[in-house]
Amino acid sequence: MTPKRSRYTRRRRNAPGSPPGQLTVDPAGEAPRLTVVHIGADGVETNPSADLASLRVPDTGLVWLNVDGLGDAATLSRIAQVFGLHPLAMEDAVNLHQRPKFEDYDQHDFIVLRMPERGGSFTTEQVSLCLGDRFVVTFQERAGDVFDPVRNRLKNPQSTIRSRGADYLAYALIDAVTDAYFPVLEAFGERLEVLEDEVVARSSPALIEDIHALRHQLRTIRGAVWPLRDMLAAVLRDDGARVSVATRVYLRDCQDHTFQLIDMIETYREIASGLVDIHLSSQANRTNEVMQVLTLIATIFIPLTFVVGVYGMNFDVMPELHWRWGYPAVMLGMAALAAGLTIWFRRKGWLGRRR
Amino acid sequence: MTPKRSRYTRRRRNAPGSPPGQLTVDPAGEAPRLTVVHIGADGVETNPSADLASLRVPDTGLVWLNVDGLGDAATLSRIAQVFGLHPLAMEDAVNLHQRPKFEDYDQHDFIVLRMPERGGSFTTEQVSLCLGDRFVVTFQERAGDVFDPVRNRLKNPQSTIRSRGADYLAYALIDAVTDAYFPVLEAFGERLEVLEDEVVARSSPALIEDIHALRHQLRTIRGAVWPLRDMLAAVLRDDGARVSVATRVYLRDCQDHTFQLIDMIETYREIASGLVDIHLSSQANRTNEVMQVLTLIATIFIPLTFVVGVYGMNFDVMPELHWRWGYPAVMLGMAALAAGLTIWFRRKGWLGRRR
Amino acid sequence: MTPKRSRYTRRRRNAPGSPPGQLTVDPAGEAPRLTVVHIGADGVETNPSADLASLRVPDTGLVWLNVDGLGDAATLSRIAQVFGLHPLAMEDAVNLHQRPKFEDYDQHDFIVLRMPERGGSFTTEQVSLCLGDRFVVTFQERAGDVFDPVRNRLKNPQSTIRSRGADYLAYALIDAVTDAYFPVLEAFGERLEVLEDEVVARSSPALIEDIHALRHQLRTIRGAVWPLRDMLAAVLRDDGARVSVATRVYLRDCQDHTFQLIDMIETYREIASGLVDIHLSSQANRTNEVMQVLTLIATIFIPLTFVVGVYGMNFDVMPELHWRWGYPAVMLGMAALAAGLTIWFRRKGWLGRRR
Amino acid sequence: MTPKRSRYTRRRRNAPGSPPGQLTVDPAGEAPRLTVVHIGADGVETNPSADLASLRVPDTGLVWLNVDGLGDAATLSRIAQVFGLHPLAMEDAVNLHQRPKFEDYDQHDFIVLRMPERGGSFTTEQVSLCLGDRFVVTFQERAGDVFDPVRNRLKNPQSTIRSRGADYLAYALIDAVTDAYFPVLEAFGERLEVLEDEVVARSSPALIEDIHALRHQLRTIRGAVWPLRDMLAAVLRDDGARVSVATRVYLRDCQDHTFQLIDMIETYREIASGLVDIHLSSQANRTNEVMQVLTLIATIFIPLTFVVGVYGMNFDVMPELHWRWGYPAVMLGMAALAAGLTIWFRRKGWLGRRR
Amino acid sequence: MTPKRSRYTRRRRNAPGSPPGQLTVDPAGEAPRLTVVHIGADGVETNPSADLASLRVPDTGLVWLNVDGLGDAATLSRIAQVFGLHPLAMEDAVNLHQRPKFEDYDQHDFIVLRMPERGGSFTTEQVSLCLGDRFVVTFQERAGDVFDPVRNRLKNPQSTIRSRGADYLAYALIDAVTDAYFPVLEAFGERLEVLEDEVVARSSPALIEDIHALRHQLRTIRGAVWPLRDMLAAVLRDDGARVSVATRVYLRDCQDHTFQLIDMIETYREIASGLVDIHLSSQANRTNEVMQVLTLIATIFIPLTFVVGVYGMNFDVMPELHWRWGYPAVMLGMAALAAGLTIWFRRKGWLGRRR
Repeated sequence: MTPKRSRYTRRRRNAPGSPPGQLTVDPAGEAPRLTVVHIGADGVETNPSADLASLRVPDTGLVWLNVDGLGDAATLSRIAQVFGLHPLAMEDAVNLHQRPKFEDYDQHDFIVLRMPERGGSFTTEQVSLCLGDRFVVTFQERAGDVFDPVRNRLKNPQSTIRSRGADYLAYALIDAVTDAYFPVLEAFGERLEVLEDEVVARSSPALIEDIHALRHQLRTIRGAVWPLRDMLAAVLRDDGARVSVATRVYLRDCQDHTFQLIDMIETYREIASGLVDIHLSSQANRTNEVMQVLTLIATIFIPLTFVVGVYGMNFDVMPELHWRWGYPAVMLGMAALAAGLTIWFRRKGWLGRRR
Repeated sequence: MTPKRSRYTRRRRNAPGSPPGQLTVDPAGEAPRLTVVHIGADGVETNPSADLASLRVPDTGLVWLNVDGLGDAATLSRIAQVFGLHPLAMEDAVNLHQRPKFEDYDQHDFIVLRMPERGGSFTTEQVSLCLGDRFVVTFQERAGDVFDPVRNRLKNPQSTIRSRGADYLAYALIDAVTDAYFPVLEAFGERLEVLEDEVVARSSPALIEDIHALRHQLRTIRGAVWPLRDMLAAVLRDDGARVSVATRVYLRDCQDHTFQLIDMIETYREIASGLVDIHLSSQANRTNEVMQVLTLIATIFIPLTFVVGVYGMNFDVMPELHWRWGYPAVMLGMAALAAGLTIWFRRKGWLGRRR
Repeated sequence: MTPKRSRYTRRRRNAPGSPPGQLTVDPAGEAPRLTVVHIGADGVETNPSADLASLRVPDTGLVWLNVDGLGDAATLSRIAQVFGLHPLAMEDAVNLHQRPKFEDYDQHDFIVLRMPERGGSFTTEQVSLCLGDRFVVTFQERAGDVFDPVRNRLKNPQSTIRSRGADYLAYALIDAVTDAYFPVLEAFGERLEVLEDEVVARSSPALIEDIHALRHQLRTIRGAVWPLRDMLAAVLRDDGARVSVATRVYLRDCQDHTFQLIDMIETYREIASGLVDIHLSSQANRTNEVMQVLTLIATIFIPLTFVVGVYGMNFDVMPELHWRWGYPAVMLGMAALAAGLTIWFRRKGWLGRRR
Repeated sequence: MTPKRSRYTRRRRNAPGSPPGQLTVDPAGEAPRLTVVHIGADGVETNPSADLASLRVPDTGLVWLNVDGLGDAATLSRIAQVFGLHPLAMEDAVNLHQRPKFEDYDQHDFIVLRMPERGGSFTTEQVSLCLGDRFVVTFQERAGDVFDPVRNRLKNPQSTIRSRGADYLAYALIDAVTDAYFPVLEAFGERLEVLEDEVVARSSPALIEDIHALRHQLRTIRGAVWPLRDMLAAVLRDDGARVSVATRVYLRDCQDHTFQLIDMIETYREIASGLVDIHLSSQANRTNEVMQVLTLIATIFIPLTFVVGVYGMNFDVMPELHWRWGYPAVMLGMAALAAGLTIWFRRKGWLGRRR
Repeated sequence: MTPKRSRYTRRRRNAPGSPPGQLTVDPAGEAPRLTVVHIGADGVETNPSADLASLRVPDTGLVWLNVDGLGDAATLSRIAQVFGLHPLAMEDAVNLHQRPKFEDYDQHDFIVLRMPERGGSFTTEQVSLCLGDRFVVTFQERAGDVFDPVRNRLKNPQSTIRSRGADYLAYALIDAVTDAYFPVLEAFGERLEVLEDEVVARSSPALIEDIHALRHQLRTIRGAVWPLRDMLAAVLRDDGARVSVATRVYLRDCQDHTFQLIDMIETYREIASGLVDIHLSSQANRTNEVMQVLTLIATIFIPLTFVVGVYGMNFDVMPELHWRWGYPAVMLGMAALAAGLTIWFRRKGWLGRRR
């Protein structure tokens, strides 16, 4: 664990008290790259680096605009204008520490997702999704996402995703984000297993920090998945007509996946808690073991040392010292004492209890 | 406890982002074996290895199709087509880590159950149940289930199960799965008792791992039974006409059993938690006990060794050394000191407190 | 604590998957003894060992049939037939590990109660109560119950219990069962006080097991009282006309008693948890104390033993050995060292801190 | 802590199974003293020792009857008769371990309050309040209460309490009881601070018992305040016309106070839990410290003692013994060893870590 | 941590039982300073030290009166009279330990906020806000607040805050208070990181007190933010027409911020709990380590000291003493023993396990 500063704090962009709906972009952010996918009766057209001027809401079919990079306020304002996006939605899209949520604005629905990113420790990227009648606009912090399977399905002429409306496309994207948590959690399951084996095998003081770090990451995932579930519930509860009954069935399926994710997370959290117990017990056990060795040695040799001390005294009159068999007798006596104590300890179960 | 890899991870079949309703079967799965039971006015006919072509929804009576083995997509697709099963239901049926749930599709109800399997550690097999007006279709991962009592009751001409509709048959199957948890939990109760006796009797470091493993299994059972209860609640809440009022009374009874199961599970979980406390206390106690023996021996002999050391010094002028009764006097003095310390310890309750 | 097998498991009578509504009686159960109380306008008639053939639902007044012993299926079937009791109610009545619950069958209400039994450890007996318009039928596992006060009130001509309907009689019985928990809990309060005094006074390793056993029993009581409260809530929520508005006032009062019981149980549970903390702290304290004695003795005598060892060396040239006052000087020096260390320890608060 | 018997048990007056609405008064209770306050258009008349015969519900204005002492059933029955109080309300009024609750009987509302009593440890006195259209009757176990401010306000001709109805008077009394918890909790806050300072300063084994006792008392307060909040919620939820809309605003304010009380209680409970952690850590730390001193002394002197033992051996051939500088050399060598070990310990941070 | 008295108690101004709606101001409080901002069609006029006499509710536009200092009852009464503020609202405004809450009085809405104050340890200042149709009145305990950004926005002629009604101004103020918690929590995140690094690096007994203090402060923040969320929920639930639909959208956004705050707080609380575990484990580990050194030294040297004691005995017949190579042989034998034990310890993993 190499702790880096700011592992628990996250900075909001907007200063407290600033007006709502402000587009305060991060100047160090990536420049927006626009990918437009037009899905019409006659096919799917993809423009991987669309021009800002060419953007419009289509009269037929639907359009999916994906924006990678949020570093330019003017571009984003123009997009908001074209699609009629609410200022608060735009503010949330550029403030990158939103929780997953659903908001039904008049012109469009607004959904915030957190997409897990690959890598050593668990992090998420914010994906904001605006769903209108004929468009889906997604905003991502940077290039690289989990939508490639959806893009591939769009290329397939038989895919349902082509024949259904914008709500189904939105579902497909939400589903892709939700399912992306499974491999992440599976990796956590594996880390837990490794940790558990280690806790059982040895009791390194670093283990408790590893467990602590793992628990923190599980907490972070939990903080992303629980509101995901609530967001889906809010979409399903919303009685607006923008999401069709047919798509709702699929969203319920997606919600089931969040239940599974939550089950896994809670299970992992409990296992990690249990590991702390095992670790503490294992530490206590090791102390016990060390104590037993010390006690064994000390308890056998301290009396013996006393005995030899006795015959090291310099009294004029100590008849034993002059006996012919005094020395061997004392040595034998001490051997018998040591043997007796050893047997007594074995009886008490202090020797060989380890195995 | 011999930990095997993947004890905390479970792999989903479908890749993240793949389209919903896909029948991605496990190629290593068993080949489907179809058992058709036709329950009509004139009797019950069982065909233990039915032909795919002969499948149909009957006009009178009802049919129960049980599918053991999910290794062939074509067979499953054909079954779905015959009974009009929803693609999402079929996807859930072949993805083997569903939580128990209830879904009311237009053509049929869909219920996922987790059936406990016999064996060393607790595992469950997924049973998916599609309930239509005139059919019940059950999908199981492999042969072997808990439905034999239901099959036997079907053979009995007087059995209610013959005279009621498909909903009652579905109830009987759900009830069989629910009740199958009781022997499993009873086995857990016995393991808990054994563990408790061991924790009280001795304090092996392996015990905490056994408790940890048991708690994990209880967590797994809990993860199966809680959604079972929710599933039954969803069925009872559902106002569709497919489950009759008469059958609902029986399902409520079945729900009561899940309450009993949950009571047992929660009780066992608390007992297992308490065992950790006993274990830790028992460890601390053993440390105490070892410490006391060490302290006793050390406290008695260290001063005595000092005394004999004194008379081992080589000063020219040490009058005691030349006294006639010096040696016996010192020996008696030391015996008195040891006796005094022993009595003092006994007073403090450090000796014989064990019993 | 003398653990007996099966302290955590309870065996259900019916095998998993067996048909519902089956009357599988325990052949070792007591033979049913029927006590019929007929409450009419002209008085109360009690028949302590009624004949099965004479049973009927009266046209005026009401009848209370109490059945002690459930060992004969034929008798029970006959009773069910006479009073029109539902098969599922009868099944629950003979399956002796039901949770308290309320079920509104068409012909009658069905209530399961758990009656605390006197004795060393807490156990409960199941009482099933069927409430019809003109009858109350109670089933008990064996003779002996808490209904004697109700029986005495029935003997009193002025008692309200005579002038009200069957619902009031049912209330009186439920109330008697509920109130029977108070003396049980008071006994637990006393045991807790005794345990607390012991935990404070001494730290026996057996205490943690006693606390563990007490917590388990509190858990068992809790498992009986919580559903009792839910059952009463279900009765009060039920809009059937069988329980009159006037009786509902009394049932709410009875429900208040369950709230009081739950308060007591939860308080006791928290106190018992706190005892574990005290116990662990007390163990740690005792270890500390033992350590301090050891450290004291060792720290004082180990340096002294070193000193006497120095003057036991056999170097040819050791001038101190030949000084006239060498021996007394060394002895005095050692006494001063011991005194200094003792004072230092006292300053650090290691001596006499106990009191 | 001087534990007195029955600190966790409370005896109910009525025997289990006795008929409801029974007025079983405690014969050792105080004789009822009746104080009647008549609030009319023309002023407030107070009769501090009213006659039972003069009691009546007024036609105009309102009357507040306060009953101190519940030792006489006849008096109480008469009062119940005059004001039309429900038997169950009267039973609850004399059974002194009710939880705060609200009951809407037809003729009057019935409210149970628990009034904190001043003194060493936290205890409460039960105050029962019956609110009719033109009367408020309060029953107290014994003389002495927190209502003096209300009595003083009644003496003030401009006080709102005179111009509003019985519901406002009831509110004023409830508010007085609620606010009486604030000084009690403030005293607990001070005790917590004292305890915290002690836990930090020293680790007496008695501290854990003090913390345990404090937690128990906080639990008791919690058991009184939580149902107080629920009671107020029940009053506000009740749609009876007896409490006017204007008074409800005040009751909501009173409910806010219970929220504040609950906040304080929960905070104190968490702080007290934290103290247990600090205490345990402090114990562990002290053990560590003692161990370090022991280890230091033992680790330095045990090797030295070995060395002097070597030169105390009596071999014929031990050349060092005959060297001229042998003795000083050994002494210097041992001093160097001791110094080296001390430096090593200091490096490891075992010395002087305390400060 | 320098504990100051009264860190857990807070004194209420009004005595228990005093009449509601009383304006008991703190005589030591600051004298009220009135700042009036008039927002009209023709611009914004700010009067930083307004005259009490000039106050009135405007006919057009809206007025924001901010009152800094609550030390004068007459001024406050006059303000209440001018704006028609409810006595209970005024009482809450001067009683400075309210929880955040919302109350819909007939003439105006009343909102209590807790504004975090900068400084070493977390404290909050109470801000009470009365929202009428044409006015917002805010009461603060003392000068200095987080409203400067709102004041700046008011100076900007294009600001939305000028064109919307009083409800939007109230939203802007609430939002400023809510957002002021983010930097406070970020500072806590940093303190947590520092503490975590320290816990990992060393195990000072003072750390547990620091963690305890931090947890207490997190509890305090939690006590402020949770009711803030509830307050916003109450505003949004309230169906009064005073808060427009357009403003509700913004309030929901503000509520989202409270969700984020709560997420952060709960995460920090869990991390702080985890630190206690690490601390305890780290203490246990240190004890282990100290024990191992002691055991190592003692186990090696105690047997050796016994050996040299043997050859220090003064028996007449001890042949080894007269062997030519006796002394070197014994020394070599002891060296071999010491080496053997050291190797055995290293095998057991007791040496060098630290790294």
